[in-house]
Amino acid sequence: MNIQEVVASLKEKHGGRIVMMVADGLGGLPLTPDGPTELEAARTPHLDRLAERGVCGLMTPIKPGITPGSGPGHLGLFGYDPLRYVIGRGVLEATGIGFSVGPNDVAIRCNFCTLDADGKIADRRAGRIPSEESAAVVTTLRAIRIPGVEIFVEPVKEHRFVVVFRGEGLGDNVADTDPQVVGVPPLDPVPHDEASRRTAEVARDFAVQARKILASQPKANGLTMRGFSKRPALPSYQEAYGLKAAAIAVYPMYKGLASLVGMELIGEPTTLEEEIDVLEKAWKETNYDFFFVHFKYTDSRGEDGDFDAKVKMIEAFDAVFPRVEALKPDVLIVTGDHSTPSKMKSHSWHPVPTLLVADTCRPDTAKTFSEKACLQGGLGHFEAIYLMPLALAHAGRLAKFGA
Amino acid sequence: MNIQEVVASLKEKHGGRIVMMVADGLGGLPLTPDGPTELEAARTPHLDRLAERGVCGLMTPIKPGITPGSGPGHLGLFGYDPLRYVIGRGVLEATGIGFSVGPNDVAIRCNFCTLDADGKIADRRAGRIPSEESAAVVTTLRAIRIPGVEIFVEPVKEHRFVVVFRGEGLGDNVADTDPQVVGVPPLDPVPHDEASRRTAEVARDFAVQARKILASQPKANGLTMRGFSKRPALPSYQEAYGLKAAAIAVYPMYKGLASLVGMELIGEPTTLEEEIDVLEKAWKETNYDFFFVHFKYTDSRGEDGDFDAKVKMIEAFDAVFPRVEALKPDVLIVTGDHSTPSKMKSHSWHPVPTLLVADTCRPDTAKTFSEKACLQGGLGHFEAIYLMPLALAHAGRLAKFGA
Repeated sequence: MNIQEVVASLKEKHGGRIVMMVADGLGGLPLTPDGPTELEAARTPHLDRLAERGVCGLMTPIKPGITPGSGPGHLGLFGYDPLRYVIGRGVLEATGIGFSVGPNDVAIRCNFCTLDADGKIADRRAGRIPSEESAAVVTTLRAIRIPGVEIFVEPVKEHRFVVVFRGEGLGDNVADTDPQVVGVPPLDPVPHDEASRRTAEVARDFAVQARKILASQPKANGLTMRGFSKRPALPSYQEAYGLKAAAIAVYPMYKGLASLVGMELIGEPTTLEEEIDVLEKAWKETNYDFFFVHFKYTDSRGEDGDFDAKVKMIEAFDAVFPRVEALKPDVLIVTGDHSTPSKMKSHSWHPVPTLLVADTCRPDTAKTFSEKACLQGGLGHFEAIYLMPLALAHAGRLAKFGA
Repeated sequence: MNIQEVVASLKEKHGGRIVMMVADGLGGLPLTPDGPTELEAARTPHLDRLAERGVCGLMTPIKPGITPGSGPGHLGLFGYDPLRYVIGRGVLEATGIGFSVGPNDVAIRCNFCTLDADGKIADRRAGRIPSEESAAVVTTLRAIRIPGVEIFVEPVKEHRFVVVFRGEGLGDNVADTDPQVVGVPPLDPVPHDEASRRTAEVARDFAVQARKILASQPKANGLTMRGFSKRPALPSYQEAYGLKAAAIAVYPMYKGLASLVGMELIGEPTTLEEEIDVLEKAWKETNYDFFFVHFKYTDSRGEDGDFDAKVKMIEAFDAVFPRVEALKPDVLIVTGDHSTPSKMKSHSWHPVPTLLVADTCRPDTAKTFSEKACLQGGLGHFEAIYLMPLALAHAGRLAKFGA
């Protein structure tokens, strides 16, 4: 049995309520060897108080040295082994624009490209056609009809768009049609198993019809397809943990990731304060057992390489905690899906400072919430997939294993 | 290769002698966030001295968040992956009363129940018939005979008893006959694989004969069967580690668990002092390489929710260490099979303070034996299945892996 199977077998129907506050890209690095990280530089009186009450640790998102994308980062946080469950590129792209990928869907990342008179690719990104212009062209592809298959075509950004085929018997094991070089035509969509033969036929038909529709376009007169994928067969939070779970997020990507594990999306918040408004209201008026609250801008400012701005975002995150504490969740978790050191301007593999507050935690010596304090914390160094088992245990939601 | 296979491949025939002192449910929690745990509150001069001499750490019994029962807890301590080797309920119940389950045995947890005139269950526990009264009724079932199968019937407590079928070709994949509700008759024992067909037939025959014998009983006139199980195919301590191992315990459950991994049960101690008498005598007069000494009452007082009484039990445990140290074991380990915080009145998932003393250990900064000191200890946070490899290494009993 792996940990997920064990947890599923031990889950209880009732127990405490859990709030997981996720500051995207929370972990950081100092700019100089003696300097503070962003979290250490930030004034975080509320998180410090929680660190003193609770237990801290450093969470490794995937495995040491592995930098997660948003998909695997959140899968790990949610307790799903990110090395076992892979969210395909097509599904991730669709999820990122808020498209809800269903069980009979195959999602595909598409690029407009520019074809020359011989049908060979002259520009793999159609001159990075501006988003507005591209969106109008994408819309023209909605005229494509293929019997037995429902088709969705959605713009993403610049030359990128998403196509989803919905229907029975569509496998997702189809090769990319992007040859990755110019001077050759787009490749044929080749099926790599029997179950994906029909998908490849549909994709070929789609490409042929698209060529005709796009023929008069000056730049976006062709397309390539990548990342054919179905949604992974993830057990829902209800199945995995017996939790009725709600997700509160501003960005479509995180809403999408939460909905892949069966969380219900609540509210339409546009700021962190509005997210907490939604949390407060749902805490009082609904019976959700678990709340995932996602805060994006710690990651964004880290990606910008703006240390001071990330510090400010952490302080803004800290400022909402009195409202969260006032709800008296049985288990309160504060963490991130990965580190985004502003020094690196990117996601990184560094472990993420994490704290857990519950009546059953064994307090440690941490008196502040920081990478240094977490290093000495009672949760030790642990992999993200153990965060949910710990949360459930502290919520009284896991039975004893064996007699 | 997993760790067990690696260790088995590296085991040496000779080496130092190891003593593993297990205080059941050792780990605890403070009653208030600033307060001490039971171990921190206890006066433990001998364990503190050993912590200063040796190396400390926090041991996770199974995986983070998972609370072990006694079976998985001890399997982990003994170095067997508790997620791989499962001790069935029938075997555990038999083990708990000191019945030695053999390789051809299927053990079953049985309950007396009360049947109405139509044969439907009126009381699933036969009015919790007192143990003495029940034991007399259990004895009458020993008259049952089934060709080709040896049958053992042993009382446990109140309405509970154990039945063991011994014979060739008896699988253990048979469904429970307890319907878990009243108003319906006991279920038929249904085999779930071909290898268990004969077991199901034997169980049905047993139930039919039992009904006749029990017909005149006012309360215990029926029975249900649960947890059909064979002993897990655990490699012995000799096979796994090359160790001739002895177990010293007061309670049948722990004797049974030790005997499942091939330890020999020595002495008939009834107190901790008597357990140390047995250890001293065997240390001098026998050639056992490994001694497992089990102390029960730290867990019992934790389960009672009596913080002060658990503190006293830890102090009693501490008091015997001068006698253990005087034997000069090459490796001395002090740990528990899990935590039992008196605050929770139950087993828990919290990691267990652990110390190891040997000439080859790298001492750390721990000057006392406590959860807090172990958190900073040189063994770090580690899973129970790595304790035996560490013990063997320090005893000079593991060869180099690879050239």
